[in-house]
Amino acid sequence: MRLVIALGGNALLKRGEPMSVEVQRRNIRAASVALAPVIRAHSVIVTHGNGPQVGLLALQAAAFTSVPSYPLDVLGAESEGMIGYLLEQELSNLLGPSVPLATLLTQMEVDPRDPAFLHPTKPIGPVYTADEAEAIKDRLGWQMVQDGAKLRRVVPSPAPVALMERKAVEVLVQTGVTLICAGGGGIPVAREPNGTFAGVEAVIDKDWASELIAKLMRADGLIMLTDVDAVKSDYGTPHARNIRSAHPAALSSLSFDAGSMGPKVKAGIAFATATGGFAAIGALTDLDRILSGEAGTRISTLHEGILYGR
Amino acid sequence: MRLVIALGGNALLKRGEPMSVEVQRRNIRAASVALAPVIRAHSVIVTHGNGPQVGLLALQAAAFTSVPSYPLDVLGAESEGMIGYLLEQELSNLLGPSVPLATLLTQMEVDPRDPAFLHPTKPIGPVYTADEAEAIKDRLGWQMVQDGAKLRRVVPSPAPVALMERKAVEVLVQTGVTLICAGGGGIPVAREPNGTFAGVEAVIDKDWASELIAKLMRADGLIMLTDVDAVKSDYGTPHARNIRSAHPAALSSLSFDAGSMGPKVKAGIAFATATGGFAAIGALTDLDRILSGEAGTRISTLHEGILYGR
Repeated sequence: MRLVIALGGNALLKRGEPMSVEVQRRNIRAASVALAPVIRAHSVIVTHGNGPQVGLLALQAAAFTSVPSYPLDVLGAESEGMIGYLLEQELSNLLGPSVPLATLLTQMEVDPRDPAFLHPTKPIGPVYTADEAEAIKDRLGWQMVQDGAKLRRVVPSPAPVALMERKAVEVLVQTGVTLICAGGGGIPVAREPNGTFAGVEAVIDKDWASELIAKLMRADGLIMLTDVDAVKSDYGTPHARNIRSAHPAALSSLSFDAGSMGPKVKAGIAFATATGGFAAIGALTDLDRILSGEAGTRISTLHEGILYGR
Repeated sequence: MRLVIALGGNALLKRGEPMSVEVQRRNIRAASVALAPVIRAHSVIVTHGNGPQVGLLALQAAAFTSVPSYPLDVLGAESEGMIGYLLEQELSNLLGPSVPLATLLTQMEVDPRDPAFLHPTKPIGPVYTADEAEAIKDRLGWQMVQDGAKLRRVVPSPAPVALMERKAVEVLVQTGVTLICAGGGGIPVAREPNGTFAGVEAVIDKDWASELIAKLMRADGLIMLTDVDAVKSDYGTPHARNIRSAHPAALSSLSFDAGSMGPKVKAGIAFATATGGFAAIGALTDLDRILSGEAGTRISTLHEGILYGR
């Protein structure tokens, strides 16, 4: 099977954890241990988020006041280098030299008129106390939203409409190279009136970027890994139930948290509907059981209605 | 022809210039204007340095004291993302969608016993006054050397011995993708006693990394672009003369500045001797005339002795 497997940025640098390279490396190693057997058995494209990491790079850039901060597209490119390197190295150490790996810098075209630019929703970086957030807003003008008892920076998250490096992705995947790409959803670029492309200040949702790549590469499955075990109906209420499998049309009738599970469910529905392939959402640590259908939530036109379970 | 073209990190962010993204983008655009016609006519692999940029990333990381600085291998990976993105975007805007481009994250194996680890020689980042340098040495422990009237950080620059992503580079080049790779000489990694690889605190010389890639990819030519128009004998003396062409054996008898021209000349000699191909060294702005043999210094076993000229 050809699989696109998307790793949450928070799975690589968990909420509230110190943002040190040691912590990030340990989490990436754990993710790689889960991925390695799947890469041995299937043709895999690995994508990943960058929310915490691109936020850290923005804080570092802002702290060094001698040089004006680079814009978010450039910081996104830096985060693709940072995370891609750590992930490729850990995977390579587990898989050995006989499994060729590559990390490709990925740009995604977005529509400059995407309404997402008017309503920033994508949280990046660490959480702040009210006082910290106020000081940062004053100094840097960053937009903040409530995140539990704390605050977090938000940036626009437009939808990806085209993959700039399509030929390279195709060539690598077709020749059996395990590819790490679309890091952080890809670097967001938009077409200028004169026809050239320029970066934009945004962070693309990596689930939608992964869905686009899965469609373009005719993947059999799109697997979105996060820190919860399944999609839940009535999440956060006493009636919450895990969804084991669902037909995309049936799942469309339910609503989910716009910040986290919503994009995954919508991207999964879109992929299953457009291709007849399956999408799955679940915990990184359950990857093998998600593939065998024993864990996570599977979305496919082969299912009828919605099946609930443990 | 298949060509490996190496861009100096200083050609992308010149000594003493502000390190802003606008300045870097303007320089990268100028480099891209020089490269574009050559990419249209030949199979090109573009490599580049990262001295100023990785130094900036290190300063930014050190300025944000809430998170310990990431090591140089990770900063090198970030710089590959940053520079690779800007370069790919400018080239893509000049060449249009019919010329497929890709930027590949590149790791280079180095020997952990390389004597370069004992004698840091590679300058990175901006230049500092004596007072600034002293404050940085106290706080961060960075090693500094004199650079003209100022000081600059130096780090070890071990020789690359193997390209970790060889299969991906081969596949992309063979299918006609114009590849940007080995940014900053590649991320330096070394084999641990248990056989796995780990990053090391160093910055590989991008000319030697380019020479390795040129050999592996059986390139016809290795072109190293910098900010001087040719290799000069008796550089800095009244007897200084431009070298127009040289047999590698003849050139080996001369000595050159170990910090800048020396590695280029040695890498060029090594490539020409090992492959029978040509190496050329010259100014970015002269690229077309370097290719036609009218500018720069050409090193090849087809030449005899040393030919001096304008």
